[in-house]
Amino acid sequence: MSFERLFHPRGVAIIGASADPSRIGGHPLKALVKAGYKGGLYPVNPKYPELAGFTCYPDAKSIKGACDLAVVAVPAPMVSAAIRDVAAAGISYAVILTAGFRETGGDGINLETELKKTLAETGVRAIGPNCQGMLSVPARVWAAFGSVSEETDLRLGEVSGAFQSGGFGYAIINLAELQGVGFRYCVSTGNETDVTMPELLSAFLDDDGTKLAFGYMEGTPDARSLLDLGRKSLETGKPVLLWKGGITETGAKAAASHTANMTGRADLYRAAFRQAGIVEVDDVEPIVDIAAIIKHGRLPRGPNVGVLSVSGGSGVVFADRAVEEGLALPPFSDETMRKLRDIVPAFGSAANPADVTAGVFNNLKLITSTLDIVLEDPGIDQLVVLLASVPGDPALKAAEAIISASKRSDKPVLLAWSGRKSRSEAAWKLLEDARIPFITTPARLAKAMAAVTRFALDRERLLGRKMPAPLPYKGQPLPDSAVSLSESESKELLRSYGVAVTKEIVVPEGKDVVAAATAAGLAYPLAVKVVSRDIAHKTEVGGVKLGIADASALAAAAGEVIANARKAKPKAAIEGVLLAEMAEGTEVLIGVINDPGFGPTVAVGMGGVLTEILKDVTYRIAPFDIETARDMIGELRAARILDGYRGKPAADKEALAEMLVTVSRMAAGLGDRLSEMDLNPVFVGPRGSGAKAADALVVLK
Amino acid sequence: MSFERLFHPRGVAIIGASADPSRIGGHPLKALVKAGYKGGLYPVNPKYPELAGFTCYPDAKSIKGACDLAVVAVPAPMVSAAIRDVAAAGISYAVILTAGFRETGGDGINLETELKKTLAETGVRAIGPNCQGMLSVPARVWAAFGSVSEETDLRLGEVSGAFQSGGFGYAIINLAELQGVGFRYCVSTGNETDVTMPELLSAFLDDDGTKLAFGYMEGTPDARSLLDLGRKSLETGKPVLLWKGGITETGAKAAASHTANMTGRADLYRAAFRQAGIVEVDDVEPIVDIAAIIKHGRLPRGPNVGVLSVSGGSGVVFADRAVEEGLALPPFSDETMRKLRDIVPAFGSAANPADVTAGVFNNLKLITSTLDIVLEDPGIDQLVVLLASVPGDPALKAAEAIISASKRSDKPVLLAWSGRKSRSEAAWKLLEDARIPFITTPARLAKAMAAVTRFALDRERLLGRKMPAPLPYKGQPLPDSAVSLSESESKELLRSYGVAVTKEIVVPEGKDVVAAATAAGLAYPLAVKVVSRDIAHKTEVGGVKLGIADASALAAAAGEVIANARKAKPKAAIEGVLLAEMAEGTEVLIGVINDPGFGPTVAVGMGGVLTEILKDVTYRIAPFDIETARDMIGELRAARILDGYRGKPAADKEALAEMLVTVSRMAAGLGDRLSEMDLNPVFVGPRGSGAKAADALVVLK
Repeated sequence: MSFERLFHPRGVAIIGASADPSRIGGHPLKALVKAGYKGGLYPVNPKYPELAGFTCYPDAKSIKGACDLAVVAVPAPMVSAAIRDVAAAGISYAVILTAGFRETGGDGINLETELKKTLAETGVRAIGPNCQGMLSVPARVWAAFGSVSEETDLRLGEVSGAFQSGGFGYAIINLAELQGVGFRYCVSTGNETDVTMPELLSAFLDDDGTKLAFGYMEGTPDARSLLDLGRKSLETGKPVLLWKGGITETGAKAAASHTANMTGRADLYRAAFRQAGIVEVDDVEPIVDIAAIIKHGRLPRGPNVGVLSVSGGSGVVFADRAVEEGLALPPFSDETMRKLRDIVPAFGSAANPADVTAGVFNNLKLITSTLDIVLEDPGIDQLVVLLASVPGDPALKAAEAIISASKRSDKPVLLAWSGRKSRSEAAWKLLEDARIPFITTPARLAKAMAAVTRFALDRERLLGRKMPAPLPYKGQPLPDSAVSLSESESKELLRSYGVAVTKEIVVPEGKDVVAAATAAGLAYPLAVKVVSRDIAHKTEVGGVKLGIADASALAAAAGEVIANARKAKPKAAIEGVLLAEMAEGTEVLIGVINDPGFGPTVAVGMGGVLTEILKDVTYRIAPFDIETARDMIGELRAARILDGYRGKPAADKEALAEMLVTVSRMAAGLGDRLSEMDLNPVFVGPRGSGAKAADALVVLK
Repeated sequence: MSFERLFHPRGVAIIGASADPSRIGGHPLKALVKAGYKGGLYPVNPKYPELAGFTCYPDAKSIKGACDLAVVAVPAPMVSAAIRDVAAAGISYAVILTAGFRETGGDGINLETELKKTLAETGVRAIGPNCQGMLSVPARVWAAFGSVSEETDLRLGEVSGAFQSGGFGYAIINLAELQGVGFRYCVSTGNETDVTMPELLSAFLDDDGTKLAFGYMEGTPDARSLLDLGRKSLETGKPVLLWKGGITETGAKAAASHTANMTGRADLYRAAFRQAGIVEVDDVEPIVDIAAIIKHGRLPRGPNVGVLSVSGGSGVVFADRAVEEGLALPPFSDETMRKLRDIVPAFGSAANPADVTAGVFNNLKLITSTLDIVLEDPGIDQLVVLLASVPGDPALKAAEAIISASKRSDKPVLLAWSGRKSRSEAAWKLLEDARIPFITTPARLAKAMAAVTRFALDRERLLGRKMPAPLPYKGQPLPDSAVSLSESESKELLRSYGVAVTKEIVVPEGKDVVAAATAAGLAYPLAVKVVSRDIAHKTEVGGVKLGIADASALAAAAGEVIANARKAKPKAAIEGVLLAEMAEGTEVLIGVINDPGFGPTVAVGMGGVLTEILKDVTYRIAPFDIETARDMIGELRAARILDGYRGKPAADKEALAEMLVTVSRMAAGLGDRLSEMDLNPVFVGPRGSGAKAADALVVLK
């Protein structure tokens, strides 16, 4: 992995090491000793000849011995100099704990600019500044300050995490550890002046020992790289869990005031997560539960869950949550049902979720004999056993049977069990050693299983997708300044990329519109609209007349829209009128924004109330393929309208999907020149008849 | 409280007590002894002269000594006889553990009918049958079998619970107890042949020691009584938490197969919870967290939360979840900001949520001096302190300061804190003793606070509401059989109750429709519809013509709808045609169903796509008042359409609310006669102009 020497340094220098425990420089040396770090320890501080029994060096250059990591705790104005000293000593990595940079504004901003330059010049790769430090549990590196510097008994495990809030991040670690999660690398990323969260998460995926990576993130300028991160996660089969802070306006404002990172738009982050196969989490419990399931080492091949419970209520609650989260509890096969009915008592149930009843206390066969039956059902992808709080010997016997059945199958076997550890030590240990996940409640189990199942299915779904190339612009030179193109220019641009627009012509003011319409072969009814780059919202100035039925009404309509526009915007340069055929079909809208973090991003919505009031819009980062476009359409809450509704024929969803793909490639091709695009409305005709943009606005920057 | 002697019996008889631990009759005596029950213990079984050192009686009548409770564990066919014996012995309460009744079908149904009759005749009040038993922690009554019969070390507390699944219910108890919840009464309710879940929950509210009641419920025939339960909960200030199982189709099917209770419609249960002030929960954690907050003893006076955090990320995450759940983090007052800025470092934040930074480790003043400042802000209703995982001495000092500040205020003071108990014993104990709630994560805290805040505000909102009386029917005698009334009959019925409908007349076939329209003073355009009780869906048979512009088109339209209807339904009895003025405004629909559990229930939705595809519909149990009707309208996701949308004027929401109230009183008045009603569409005109039903269907039964 990259960062190998960061996480496994041969020696650690503490720049600004202090004997004063009230200073942050007083923590790392103590923590490294307490954690049992075995490499060289080199406190650096010209004030002391020696510190806590270690030789103290006046500067990093004087260090004798191999050293790969410097923990920097000197005041902010001295950090850049410290980095130069570190570089001169041949140290490759730094963890900069010091605060007082960009996050404080004023002078801090200059200090951070200087630090960034210093890091670039020296090649030192740095975590921070303004961070709480990092841990490498396998190498016993506790390069941190604050409460975590005293918590050196974290258990080693397979989860690595990075977080944009040190205190909160280490609280997550602490709480997850109490619930059984073991860790490898934990990094408080601070201002991310050099090393960013996506880069770290990507490095975690390269680490053989890490099976799961998680991040607490408020935002990153490098948002687009999340797509590559997700792909790597799917390729390696190691889920990346992201907890996005600042998803509400209040939360985003709070984030802006405490972090130097922009939070960005939550809806785009969520779209990117879906597009990339990243798993969104929103609390500590999902991290704990998903980690338990990943430790099992088996990813399900499908969403179909077979359930055995010792209590009917557990099965009901599991079924409720599982279905809500997108899993399925299909009926068992006839053979499975027949076999189960021979065993399960009449007051239980042999149907999925099967209730083998509390009779298990006296008759363990109810569990031991039913496990294989369900696991062998070809319609079942994963087995869930709901053990309620069965304690002691029955729990032990059940655990033995479950472990044994699990060995005879390659399907995931998962438990909801809240037996007290104190009354079930043996069962607890047996299950842990066998890596059989047991999660406290059926509802939590269902939620975590659903997340892991989505990840497993995303590997099938997303990995085969090839992002198409951006479409370069090949037409007349674009205007070289920021400008809103007129409707006809916008449509011309779209047409040049192969996006279908309504058939139309522009007639300069004063020319005979009726003759022009006839010459162009336009079919009535027509739409008549004023053409002007200076008028973005034509309807508002009376610049649009729809449904002009025949030639006799056309001339009047053309005169009227120009007069209206002139009256409303006397200074607008008016080129003429646009005559367009009216389109028919289901109305949708396609939008493109050029997000500062994600770049060109495409939106689709059903238009009208659904978009404006119910916000029924989905996004994807451009460019993307047809399957991604189909996902977007399918995710609309009102997508069913496109399948034919109240006797309307089914709409040409495939044409809409193709248009989305083309728009996404066009947006990517326009790249930095694009500010936004708006195709609204787009009419999606009946199946096979295509989709057409009836109005369009392209804004260049 | 009622059931006093059930939960505090002077003696307990065990009918069918057994020496065999593999039988359920072998458990209760052992459990009662182990739990340290101090009353009389009377095993009853003619087979033994003595059992585990206790005199064993041949029957209940032979018991010497005061006895109020019988635990019944004899086989199902013997239970009714046992109850007669118990009644003869003067024992008032029974807990019937035995299974094999209604839930097994066949003979079990007859046994249950017999048992119900026996209970009614003898007056013995019974829990079960087919239940796992009950606990009274204060009286040390462990009248149960299975794993709970061995878990006799539950801590005493202020929470009482009832559940329709024994194994699952006791798993909830177990898990909640591990997270610090103390209990009073726990009841597995089984088939609820006599005592029902709502009755038990109501009794819990009467108990002085119970501060919170919860239920796991799959359904109850007595669903309507939840409204009274909610009112009592609001009156007593003790929340009722209900976990409804079977909210998905799969879950409901599973419930039907394991319980004898119908699950009922989840959307109606949720509506009833909102209407009644009952708190819905969906996992164990919310129960644990809400219990911790209720133990605090302070209900907030409003949703405005002031936050102090030691870590920016905690504040962001808290803010996100709080806002999502309906709480608010308003800006602090200028004075509060000024005072906080004097204390909080520049790299923190003095704005709400304030980030006092991890500097607290060296400077506890950051917490101790800021608490009072925020508590004194008049715009703040509740104070939240986010302590991350601060351990040891800083945690202790922070706890002391928080407890002290809390004493100087009457506002709720709540913590998110995940400090390890092992490293923070003193702080942990101090906070527990002072009843300051500390919840592990900011997200969980926000969710639980929001639930408690809704409960507190529901007391203000809902308790003052007076449910109006049902409106008795006063018109012509209704048809005395099940029948769908024709549109005109339906509208006539509505009109007789004061529900506005479009102005209209019915013209018998063959009469001059134009003359009739003129005579009645109808204003064009008109709607023309066929009138027939035999045709419920007029549009489908071509029986409706809308927007008839003038007299010349009217006669043709009338002839056409009759011809169409006759062609489509040759056997239909056609009375004539209905001529109605066309209504204008925003389209909504009002529906009424007569639910088996809840009785007449009113629905409102925005119509069209919003109802049919997005299911944007809300419900309330009838009858209800105008404020309840306003709640219904406000809860619609697309409610904003009624406030004026795209230049349309705001609709007369008040008229719609009044119509909902009248319909609810009418539905309640029709009571058992009503099968369903459908007012669709209802046109809500601009503010002040009222609302009118343009079509209606009333189905009687």
